[in-house]
Amino acid sequence: MEVRGECLIGGFGIRGGGPAFHAVHQASGLDLPETFYSATPADVEEALELASAAFDSYRETSPKYRGAFIDAIASNLMALGDQLLERGSAETGLPLARLESERARTVGQLRLFGREVAAGHFLRISHEPGDEMRRSLVKPDLRVRNVPLGPVAVFGSSNFPLAFSAAGGDTASALAAGCPVVVKAHPAHPGTSELAGRAVQRAALQCGLHPGVYSLLFDAGYETGQALVADRRIRAVGFTGSRRGGLALIDIASKRREPIPVYAEMSSVNPVVVLPDALAKRGDEIAAASVAALTTGAGQFCTNPGLILAIDGPDLRNFIARASERIAEVPPQTMLTKGIHNAYCAALERLSTKSAVTTEAMGPGSPGMNGAAALFSTSALDFLADRELQEETFGPASVVVACLNEIEIHKVLEALEGQLTVAVHISERDIPMARLLVPRLELLAGRLIVNGFGTGVEVSPAMVHGGPFPATSDGRSSSVGTLAVDRFVRPVCYQDFPESLLPKPFLAAPPSGVASPRDTRDGADHPNTFHHHRQ
Amino acid sequence: MEVRGECLIGGFGIRGGGPAFHAVHQASGLDLPETFYSATPADVEEALELASAAFDSYRETSPKYRGAFIDAIASNLMALGDQLLERGSAETGLPLARLESERARTVGQLRLFGREVAAGHFLRISHEPGDEMRRSLVKPDLRVRNVPLGPVAVFGSSNFPLAFSAAGGDTASALAAGCPVVVKAHPAHPGTSELAGRAVQRAALQCGLHPGVYSLLFDAGYETGQALVADRRIRAVGFTGSRRGGLALIDIASKRREPIPVYAEMSSVNPVVVLPDALAKRGDEIAAASVAALTTGAGQFCTNPGLILAIDGPDLRNFIARASERIAEVPPQTMLTKGIHNAYCAALERLSTKSAVTTEAMGPGSPGMNGAAALFSTSALDFLADRELQEETFGPASVVVACLNEIEIHKVLEALEGQLTVAVHISERDIPMARLLVPRLELLAGRLIVNGFGTGVEVSPAMVHGGPFPATSDGRSSSVGTLAVDRFVRPVCYQDFPESLLPKPFLAAPPSGVASPRDTRDGADHPNTFHHHRQ
Repeated sequence: MEVRGECLIGGFGIRGGGPAFHAVHQASGLDLPETFYSATPADVEEALELASAAFDSYRETSPKYRGAFIDAIASNLMALGDQLLERGSAETGLPLARLESERARTVGQLRLFGREVAAGHFLRISHEPGDEMRRSLVKPDLRVRNVPLGPVAVFGSSNFPLAFSAAGGDTASALAAGCPVVVKAHPAHPGTSELAGRAVQRAALQCGLHPGVYSLLFDAGYETGQALVADRRIRAVGFTGSRRGGLALIDIASKRREPIPVYAEMSSVNPVVVLPDALAKRGDEIAAASVAALTTGAGQFCTNPGLILAIDGPDLRNFIARASERIAEVPPQTMLTKGIHNAYCAALERLSTKSAVTTEAMGPGSPGMNGAAALFSTSALDFLADRELQEETFGPASVVVACLNEIEIHKVLEALEGQLTVAVHISERDIPMARLLVPRLELLAGRLIVNGFGTGVEVSPAMVHGGPFPATSDGRSSSVGTLAVDRFVRPVCYQDFPESLLPKPFLAAPPSGVASPRDTRDGADHPNTFHHHRQ
Repeated sequence: MEVRGECLIGGFGIRGGGPAFHAVHQASGLDLPETFYSATPADVEEALELASAAFDSYRETSPKYRGAFIDAIASNLMALGDQLLERGSAETGLPLARLESERARTVGQLRLFGREVAAGHFLRISHEPGDEMRRSLVKPDLRVRNVPLGPVAVFGSSNFPLAFSAAGGDTASALAAGCPVVVKAHPAHPGTSELAGRAVQRAALQCGLHPGVYSLLFDAGYETGQALVADRRIRAVGFTGSRRGGLALIDIASKRREPIPVYAEMSSVNPVVVLPDALAKRGDEIAAASVAALTTGAGQFCTNPGLILAIDGPDLRNFIARASERIAEVPPQTMLTKGIHNAYCAALERLSTKSAVTTEAMGPGSPGMNGAAALFSTSALDFLADRELQEETFGPASVVVACLNEIEIHKVLEALEGQLTVAVHISERDIPMARLLVPRLELLAGRLIVNGFGTGVEVSPAMVHGGPFPATSDGRSSSVGTLAVDRFVRPVCYQDFPESLLPKPFLAAPPSGVASPRDTRDGADHPNTFHHHRQ
């Protein structure tokens, strides 16, 4: 398939009337040949009008039909073959193997949603029959189901060109919920976005859906994204990116006449706590695994372990020494964009010049766009005194915080902002200490991991990829796994409806509530995972 | 039990150091004898510090224990006997019989939550076992459960002195979720609030809970409420009241360092659509039922039918004539507060002087605090041209909108803001027309009712009492029924936890997911309903 630099608007490829831009071959820093054209306000208007027009018919599609559509997107993505992987790798600098596993995750997620939609799970239908004989007053007949919110604006992220982009988790979950989607493609990988977007567009065509169900808009600047979030026809927003970007969208959404939910995944340092016995017995192993988790994909994961907490002493010094050896061996890796690379270099500079911070190790020099891995250390007291140390460094850098004792570990954890993940490394003898930590960690993060790292995100019904602010703007939500669909629906109650007036899904459903979508359902036949490393 | 005018702070009754105020005997307009004292910033600080301290132990209570606590609140409310009803009636002007049925609803709700908590339903526990042999990569062991957000600020409403107040739905659902509660009592019924608050306080004492689990603060002004919402220890807010009040709290919450969810129920006109055949065959009956629904409790319900839509013609003119006769017969009723009465009189004045609005009927004159029932009419075109006509008139007034045809009904419905409820009155022959309306109504409101009115709110798992903005600030939520608890929890995923480290509820739970809390569970042995009228 040819990359044409066109916005996808309601079944057509349309050259935007706005400023032109090019994608960059990140490894070389050179422009790729195709020209992309930013959307104009008129393009945005057309996509929104079509999304609005598509909503009524799309939300009425039967569960099976909608499931087949989402499954068709998965098939179309696979049909793009190596072209999608090669384009993704060129535009992001990520290795081909990484793109391949990210595609497996993206496709697996679509297939999982396809199955769940087809089974009707997201509707959460239940029925409480009325009782005309009830002593006090007649009990009404009540039925409840989830309905979709309406068209959703999805912002492609820089760091997952497939899994959180044109056909990624936000798009898939919004479509699964019954919401049309308008994607603002990330300008760093427009070709990858166009290819993936065409896979969605083609699936809509194949399934005979209203073509307004999906549009994809390019913009080298911010206007298109801002216009989408401000528009009355958009009913929810999915975003993965920087804290500044997320907060800007939340601000726009809150000033609308009708505010809408913005699900923004923004910032997380993903603390790793290594408890004493594990540190003593498996320090070398955990050090190696930490560096592997930290540096895969140039450390550009939302769940990257950016903070390591342990009690100071010879075992921790050994841990730092082993980790430092590994860091020094990590070859520099191409980063996603020039902006991300510059910000990473500035963060390294800031950290390494702080008097309270020791630079423990730095990977080999970083010519061009390459990010050098880095390990720093500081004391708990110094960490607590400097809020800047809490901030996420997007890239392969981590800070070891040496704590005097267990109490200082608790103090550091209490001082932290909300996180996507927290990992604890333990041996059997650390269990009593870990038990005291768990209640604290539950308040801190959306996912707690024992003897592993957050970087492997299983796509499944029990996954939570979310966490208290600022990890996400809404800590009650998950952007990965089937829980992600709940973000785009709301419950509606139907009281005393005669059968002849009931929406179809009620008639097909069993008389009482169906099982929760969080039930375990087997996904072994599909590669619905994306693990980079696990111990 | 004596009403002492004391704030309830962590197990004690404490005379606030702020400005004194009195409750008003609404029927006479005279001050009641007891003096109430507003909380000072120091009182607020103490309640917050205690709530924060109570959170860790309270959230770890076992489901059975927590269920017993919530059940004990119900028993203690009942034990207050007639004193609670009499005080409530005096402070609100609502009849004793209404207070009695509201108490039944409040107590029934607490008992329902007590049972659901004891059964562990709100935890939504599920477990996906890992798979070390998976082809691609080891599948991790994942468990998920809901954890409480933290201390919740609850604002008592003016119109439900029991059901949405000190021990009402927000308090009950936050406590059920595992969150301590700090109530800002509504200054219009402080004695009722103190009595109900003492029932909660006593239950906490009886169950040996940390006394910080519940506090109740008085304030004749806004400072205490504002301070609660702004404080970092408060993690969510429940509010029922005016649009202006709700938006002010949302604004404070959004400016926090860590924004929090505000569940504000604000404004709804609850349209009633009467379709042609029903209008022809049962116009008289529906007119009578509409007026009954409109005027019970002086029309001071969130689900009050403030708008009636039908196609113009002789049947509608007959409907208006019948309804007008009824309106003229409704005796004036004491309104909740002087402020509400003044606002209602101003709204009547505003409506009756609009040239496009006809005053069809007005109840007998309204000396003192009494609100006269009123019925107005206008055309769909005039309605669409004047946004003011869409605003909620809090009190027993309704506007009939005469539409030229079915298309105009659709146009008016499309122009409306979000609603709590929409009712449709139909006969068998109206079904085809109704079928076309339902998809529109689903987007408009949280509850759709056939041949009834929204004023009866069943307290049960399938109830939705919420709706798109401005009906509520978060249309994905319900403030009545077991869904209300979901507002105060978030999911946490536990990855690869050894059994020895798992929180207790996982060990007691069945291996896979438990049924959804929306399943039908019988509540027939408890009066968990609050119907005022149903056809």
